[in-house]
Amino acid sequence: MIKVAILGAGNVGSHLIRVFKKTPTIEIVQVYNRSLSKIEMYRSDYKITDDVNTLVDADVYIITISDDEIHSFSASLPLQNKLVVHTSGTKDINELSGEFNKGVFYPLQTITKGKEIDFETIPICIEANNIADEKILFDLANLISSSVHRVNSLQRRKLHLAGVFVNNFTNHLFQIGEDICKSNELPFEILYPLIQETATKILAIHPKEAQTGPAIRKNSKTIAEQEAQLSGTRKELYTLITKSIQESNQ
Amino acid sequence: MIKVAILGAGNVGSHLIRVFKKTPTIEIVQVYNRSLSKIEMYRSDYKITDDVNTLVDADVYIITISDDEIHSFSASLPLQNKLVVHTSGTKDINELSGEFNKGVFYPLQTITKGKEIDFETIPICIEANNIADEKILFDLANLISSSVHRVNSLQRRKLHLAGVFVNNFTNHLFQIGEDICKSNELPFEILYPLIQETATKILAIHPKEAQTGPAIRKNSKTIAEQEAQLSGTRKELYTLITKSIQESNQ
Repeated sequence: MIKVAILGAGNVGSHLIRVFKKTPTIEIVQVYNRSLSKIEMYRSDYKITDDVNTLVDADVYIITISDDEIHSFSASLPLQNKLVVHTSGTKDINELSGEFNKGVFYPLQTITKGKEIDFETIPICIEANNIADEKILFDLANLISSSVHRVNSLQRRKLHLAGVFVNNFTNHLFQIGEDICKSNELPFEILYPLIQETATKILAIHPKEAQTGPAIRKNSKTIAEQEAQLSGTRKELYTLITKSIQESNQ
Repeated sequence: MIKVAILGAGNVGSHLIRVFKKTPTIEIVQVYNRSLSKIEMYRSDYKITDDVNTLVDADVYIITISDDEIHSFSASLPLQNKLVVHTSGTKDINELSGEFNKGVFYPLQTITKGKEIDFETIPICIEANNIADEKILFDLANLISSSVHRVNSLQRRKLHLAGVFVNNFTNHLFQIGEDICKSNELPFEILYPLIQETATKILAIHPKEAQTGPAIRKNSKTIAEQEAQLSGTRKELYTLITKSIQESNQ
């Protein structure tokens, strides 16, 4: 049995509580939040608190508050010789401040409040300063996911950057696609199969091999025609991504 | 029974031949290609030819050759009062030149030679100059796909542009993600679930609502940190997409 305390009940915290609850060999010993009203719903199942001085004993304390508060919050914890981890993709393990053992437990997924997540397929990136702590985090992650990775702070920062490209930026391209459809009385749904195929294809072949379109074919006539249909930032975007495709595939 | 002749046996042509072959109410009456050797494999099943003057009678002649050759090739066809269509996403219906009825039969998908395609889910965009021809194309498309759309030449050009954003450009972002992983000894597979979720999410909510990340949160600290990790065109790309996200979501 691994005993965990969840510190913060936002998106990540509430998703972790849900998946830990379903896992018999994980015991949530306490849920902390700075506002007690937001965790009242957990009162019947767990100890809840808004005072870090009343934290009970746990194998792992998981901080799920926002990135920029990790440093000051962790410094306020009266924990010694305990394992305390954060769940941030961007912050270094040493963002944690205190007389405790430090670690990271980072689920790599776009987490939306209210939308259920199948943790089984979500990669969990762990980091610790010693093998014993790493083992605890590995065991904990392994209980909820089949994809657990040792990732150091530098790698995690890079992974987060890659995530911005493949998730945030990609979603923005979808938005541009929808806007173009809307402006021309076309249902956005008409692009769904293309979008799904684009995402599925790279499971089988590398994106470099999967690249198609006017940019990689250096079809300057089509490129010019398409640029002429755009204006402002989106026109610049078309030009720059085209340039980037050509540079990356020389 | 709808009788079709396929003119050109490249990617689109060979995929159409395969799906038409499986459809009992469609009869392929002839396959044309300028080089006969490339269509020898069809000889046992269909009439094949490399001479447009030997084309036999069909309800629809489907030109699947490359975009830039549609005009001159169609002008060489000795067909009168017949329905001749092209399969291009970018070309106007009037790119076709001749004394025949004109139309378009455009399957909206990224088609890779050799990779099997489930046409049932692929949107087919049709266009014709009269209702009788439109009905023939609608019936033909409907036999192989459950997603048939009347799309005029201007709309199709816009759809193709949208496709470049959601398919070609998106795939390039995946390539950047893979490059970042590779450079930091991370398996690209670690990003698969995030990529799949990004593509799946927009089936349920609009991209505008699905947008997350530092750009839309205007988290200038993270934005600056991530820009600093990049250089050259990719740094410019990060900056410009961030700007585009902020402009599009004011």
